[in-house]
Amino acid sequence: MTVQDLDTPALLIDLDIMERNLARVGDYARQHNLRLRPHTKTHKIPALGRQQLALGAVGLTVAKVSEAEVMLETGTPDLLVAYPTFGAAKLARLVEVARQTKVTMSLDSLEVARPLSAAAQAAGVSIGVLAEIDVGLGRVGVDPAAPLLELVRGVEQLPGLTFEGLAFYPGQIKKMDGEGIAEITKVNERLAGALDLMARHSVACGVVSAGSTPTWMHTHEMTGVNEMRPGTYIFNDRNTVASGACGWEDCAVSILTTVVSTARPQQMILDGGSKTFSSDRLGDPKDVTFGKIVEEPAARFHKMNEEHGFVDLSAASRSFAVGERVRVIPNHVCVAVNLHERVYGMRGETVEAVWTVAGRGKLQ
Amino acid sequence: MTVQDLDTPALLIDLDIMERNLARVGDYARQHNLRLRPHTKTHKIPALGRQQLALGAVGLTVAKVSEAEVMLETGTPDLLVAYPTFGAAKLARLVEVARQTKVTMSLDSLEVARPLSAAAQAAGVSIGVLAEIDVGLGRVGVDPAAPLLELVRGVEQLPGLTFEGLAFYPGQIKKMDGEGIAEITKVNERLAGALDLMARHSVACGVVSAGSTPTWMHTHEMTGVNEMRPGTYIFNDRNTVASGACGWEDCAVSILTTVVSTARPQQMILDGGSKTFSSDRLGDPKDVTFGKIVEEPAARFHKMNEEHGFVDLSAASRSFAVGERVRVIPNHVCVAVNLHERVYGMRGETVEAVWTVAGRGKLQ
Repeated sequence: MTVQDLDTPALLIDLDIMERNLARVGDYARQHNLRLRPHTKTHKIPALGRQQLALGAVGLTVAKVSEAEVMLETGTPDLLVAYPTFGAAKLARLVEVARQTKVTMSLDSLEVARPLSAAAQAAGVSIGVLAEIDVGLGRVGVDPAAPLLELVRGVEQLPGLTFEGLAFYPGQIKKMDGEGIAEITKVNERLAGALDLMARHSVACGVVSAGSTPTWMHTHEMTGVNEMRPGTYIFNDRNTVASGACGWEDCAVSILTTVVSTARPQQMILDGGSKTFSSDRLGDPKDVTFGKIVEEPAARFHKMNEEHGFVDLSAASRSFAVGERVRVIPNHVCVAVNLHERVYGMRGETVEAVWTVAGRGKLQ
Repeated sequence: MTVQDLDTPALLIDLDIMERNLARVGDYARQHNLRLRPHTKTHKIPALGRQQLALGAVGLTVAKVSEAEVMLETGTPDLLVAYPTFGAAKLARLVEVARQTKVTMSLDSLEVARPLSAAAQAAGVSIGVLAEIDVGLGRVGVDPAAPLLELVRGVEQLPGLTFEGLAFYPGQIKKMDGEGIAEITKVNERLAGALDLMARHSVACGVVSAGSTPTWMHTHEMTGVNEMRPGTYIFNDRNTVASGACGWEDCAVSILTTVVSTARPQQMILDGGSKTFSSDRLGDPKDVTFGKIVEEPAARFHKMNEEHGFVDLSAASRSFAVGERVRVIPNHVCVAVNLHERVYGMRGETVEAVWTVAGRGKLQ
């Protein structure tokens, strides 16, 4: 089967690029003696989790219990649920996962830790805990001062849980320019404070775990960090290029679409919109775009409805006809993959792999 | 089962409100002698398509061949594929659908009509065609002048196809204020021109079909229109309220979430982000929000990541604790439903129906 045989829209992965992306980060982690625990929310495909493990990952990261269940199929020795997971139904399922592999959760409150402890204890399993700290994003994570110590002390006293260290997500660093580098300095101040606090109170932090893809190549410069868990790096996307963490040649993903209308002059409509790409935006409010048209970089994918992609061709050097196929590099591959039942792995124009996105649509 | 038994995030539909929404538009259509052919892309659930048919719909509308296949289960006498569908694989499947029920496609080019004709002829089926005209949105649709006549004349000559009339989507009208009403006047000028052209050339237009939900109650004021195909009206959402086409009491949809972190003062993090709600925005760029928090209207759902909803509580009159449940009315229900495997129909707090979103994730 070749790409031409695929119906559109179809999410394509260039396997050569993907393998290069996996090897690059795997090599980096080895070189800097960092544990690599990639976030599988980007692909949600067990076969790719297996490939990450084969290329040196020590375990896998997930956001949801359902993703943990799906990733068990990889035979991973270790699963990090990087999300403060709450609720009896989820915890009942999570302890079942913990019977089959080592499970760790990052969390930021005893309100989350206590029911986790109760569920682990009732099931007779042990679950690792990373204390999530806020290093500047202001999302989840305790202030790495008194609230951190209180959280750690609380977790240490809870049966069924083992405190393993710290986790953080420097998601506020979106661009690795001078400002981004300056942000890392601030992150390091917060990290140094947290580690000093832990040392002063004789708390051992075996793991200090950091996201994310934009900052991946600076992980070794982050104070005390010994684990990285990038997600998007396997495919990369327009956001990753915009962050400076990769070039266009490193984008393994494109979405194959068909031109379905050219009724309006200097415009083409593609058979993919927000139900194919997601509505994730890139650009400032006045110049938002939804993807890069591979065949014509001067084309502007400036608007979408659910099933329509509006592409402005007024600056384009060529025209497109109804029925032509166009590849688009999406803004944010993680949310795009989540919209597709299947993903197609291609080598050149040959479709080598058809993967079911096993974790897609599983919200709990 | 009650709503309290559901794990989060969960997409809830209030059945009393939904039934009222269905009845209201059904009554309107009957009163004004309009054919009602609701767009099922909003729910993608055959049981709801059946309910629409039971309440007076003459047929159903879909955007994709896969949605047509799914909606066959309703036993609908009539399916409108409101999308210029291109490609051999899709057409092979579409003619199979056309063996089981009457199929019509709206399209705007002979490049789309010709392969459709060939597929219909080869399969020995007849497919209806509506000529899509542009009444101001500038998406698909021919200019309702010479290009329309050319399209219609071309379709009339193609075997396997039957020209049935005109279709349009007034999606540029998002708010039914003075400006919106003025827009309808412009739409009517375009419609009158198209119908006059057709009459002068003795082309019979049995069907003149209009979207959409924001304009539904003005359909009878649109020149020559005898069919309406709203979609969102079954559930309504924040966009519909913003358009003025309904009030909050008409929103049947809410997404049940759990507070998973309150680590940052005056903020709560919900267990739903762009993979639960979609990234569809509402508001001007400086004041974008992603949903209305039912329990606290002063809370601002101002930011999201894939699995995190950021809610600013600085103007709120109450606080929220980790583990509390919060309902959120999403901006755009059609793209939100498309992210969920299941939708829960509730009567009061009792869960009366659990529907699988059968058409979800089917992109082709």
